Amino acid sequence: MPILVMKFGGTSVATLDKIKRAAKRVGREVANGYDVIVVVSAMSGETNKLVGYVNETSPMYDAREYDAVVSSGENVTAGLMALTLQEMDVPARSWQGWQVPLKTNSSHGAARIEEIPTDNILAKFGEGMKVAVVAGFQGISPEGRITTLGRGGSDTTAVAFAAAFDADRCDIYTDVDGVYTTDPRIESKASKLEKIAFEEMLELASLGAKVLQTRSVELAMRYGVRLRVLSSFEEYDPNAGTLICAEEDIVENKPVSGIAASREEAKMTLLSVADRPGIAASIFGPLAEAGVNVDMIIQNISEEGRTDMTFSCPVDQVNRAKAALGAARDRGEFNFGELVSDTEVAKISLVGIGMRSQSGVAAKMFKVLSDEGINIKVIATSEIKISVLVDRKYTELAVQALHDAFELDKS
Amino acid sequence: MPILVMKFGGTSVATLDKIKRAAKRVGREVANGYDVIVVVSAMSGETNKLVGYVNETSPMYDAREYDAVVSSGENVTAGLMALTLQEMDVPARSWQGWQVPLKTNSSHGAARIEEIPTDNILAKFGEGMKVAVVAGFQGISPEGRITTLGRGGSDTTAVAFAAAFDADRCDIYTDVDGVYTTDPRIESKASKLEKIAFEEMLELASLGAKVLQTRSVELAMRYGVRLRVLSSFEEYDPNAGTLICAEEDIVENKPVSGIAASREEAKMTLLSVADRPGIAASIFGPLAEAGVNVDMIIQNISEEGRTDMTFSCPVDQVNRAKAALGAARDRGEFNFGELVSDTEVAKISLVGIGMRSQSGVAAKMFKVLSDEGINIKVIATSEIKISVLVDRKYTELAVQALHDAFELDKS
Repeated sequence: MPILVMKFGGTSVATLDKIKRAAKRVGREVANGYDVIVVVSAMSGETNKLVGYVNETSPMYDAREYDAVVSSGENVTAGLMALTLQEMDVPARSWQGWQVPLKTNSSHGAARIEEIPTDNILAKFGEGMKVAVVAGFQGISPEGRITTLGRGGSDTTAVAFAAAFDADRCDIYTDVDGVYTTDPRIESKASKLEKIAFEEMLELASLGAKVLQTRSVELAMRYGVRLRVLSSFEEYDPNAGTLICAEEDIVENKPVSGIAASREEAKMTLLSVADRPGIAASIFGPLAEAGVNVDMIIQNISEEGRTDMTFSCPVDQVNRAKAALGAARDRGEFNFGELVSDTEVAKISLVGIGMRSQSGVAAKMFKVLSDEGINIKVIATSEIKISVLVDRKYTELAVQALHDAFELDKS
Repeated sequence: MPILVMKFGGTSVATLDKIKRAAKRVGREVANGYDVIVVVSAMSGETNKLVGYVNETSPMYDAREYDAVVSSGENVTAGLMALTLQEMDVPARSWQGWQVPLKTNSSHGAARIEEIPTDNILAKFGEGMKVAVVAGFQGISPEGRITTLGRGGSDTTAVAFAAAFDADRCDIYTDVDGVYTTDPRIESKASKLEKIAFEEMLELASLGAKVLQTRSVELAMRYGVRLRVLSSFEEYDPNAGTLICAEEDIVENKPVSGIAASREEAKMTLLSVADRPGIAASIFGPLAEAGVNVDMIIQNISEEGRTDMTFSCPVDQVNRAKAALGAARDRGEFNFGELVSDTEVAKISLVGIGMRSQSGVAAKMFKVLSDEGINIKVIATSEIKISVLVDRKYTELAVQALHDAFELDKS
């Protein structure tokens, strides 16, 4: 039998009624001829409650005990899902992480999956079981302790099972019905993408489209797992949602697949820095140590041995960045004339694998923004992405103009 | 290091504050020089919530999934208790049932403990850990599935650990401060017993004193585990509570240790039954099959080959008993003249191992009741117990008069 992995997030299993709705979708895929592995999250709110207990008990908690406590929510859902399927006469049973066993390393709270033996579950499929319900987000360490994979880890669990069992597809059921060309709250003409390449999804995920955990997309790309994101609250439709797949599975690439906007950005410039080898390391080393997530980095043309260094970071890290740079200067690690920060910027990014083969995307982007009177403050590009920083007040205008210009409402 | 087992029930770990209070008691015993095994229940209300989920999902549930779901509450408390102890600088870690592993048979929902290997936990004690926190109520079956021991199973878990680790004592912390000579709601002069023998506790437990699960007392008796019942809500006192121990540890036995009263009793009499071999089996067989818990059985003197057969059972099983006996008569299994039931009776029992060596207890009991004008309807005795059925309206009067006569307020 072909195997399908179906993952249901916390909002999709928030109540017994929602578990029943999810189970009906599973039953339909069983009727379609699949052996199904269902990965479930905790009922929504449960994990937060448990995390709250741990934080209140012990602010500097032992991560092994944290994992033992917070993993319990998924166990409850897994058992209830198995019971619901049994009530529908679908042969099912639950597995907790240690029972599979889903083997991880010992990095409690953010463990990495090392191995998923398939014999145990395949044997049950061989005996006529149709659905294996697996508690997401959890595994077992070499020491026999319970581990968790970090928040959102159930997506990663699902993809890892799909890879280990060579599943036809991994369906991620969530509270949105797919991946959109841009945030529909910013551009009402945003349209749902039928397909998107792994690389594009990774750029969009890290840019703030919170549909899928980045790690799960990376894993899917590495193992060639076809991922589908779809809503658990819509009527059944075999072609629903967005398929995240390899580039070669997408027949025609438009130059731009999606536009991401991030408002919580700040731009910082160090004026008059000595232009010498190692200067970048001496600036960004202390920032990294201080936990500042530096994103774009621009170094201007040098004049008379001095240069300006500009970077962007999340706006709530500006004070931390200032303190780190000031301390480094006080220690004599480097010198600068002035530190200028602009905390009123937004980052607008175009993403598309089509950019690789089609030129002129950047030029068109700059012209569209210019026509709207929007000044570009910083530009950064990668093979499949162009990002610019603009004044935050232009966020909606920039996204809407670019969405129109690249005809994304017709996807 | 000597080992102490401490068990905290649901009300003793109902909130993070209560867990902290319980942890302080554990810390004090560590300071007293013990290596401690703490057995915890789920936070009060949690298990009922989970049982509710299962019942709503699947009325005829798969007991294996039931166990996987309802065992999760204890895992949460175990982790939180370990974290709380760590915060107090007491080296501690949690164990779930499968991690110990607490091996049981496969009777899901009511599993029996088969083995508790000690090497794992003893090794950690050897490395300097002071407290092993164990999730109560749960174990692992030979098939690797999670099992539960039945409601109240955490008492049994605690006693089983005390037996396996040859603990000095097993302290059961609960919401009452010990075992009383009788129910203080019936007799305000009821006094707390300092010590009580296992056999007496078993009689009192099965008579309705809901302090300890009967199974845990049986287990303690079999393995000679000294049990102490005490309140988790009182100030620390090394002599608090009631010690349940072997008969030989009790220096002076009073003839009567306690009085139990059960109001929910009914008396049923089959008039004019044929007095022939096998008649008792043909009457009580159908009652057992119908799930009627027959308690006392009295057969009157036979006259002309006919006899009357009287028995008592819980008052809410009277209709079931009538139906079962009527059906058996209809099937021709036996005949009787009339079935008379009295649903307004109570059972009053005197319990005491001293009865074995001191005569006259029964005679004194009958005289006390007679002096109060209370008619005795049925009498049943065992080696350490005398039970009588009386009209329910005399329950308080009977208990108070007997409590006075046997001077139980001076224990």
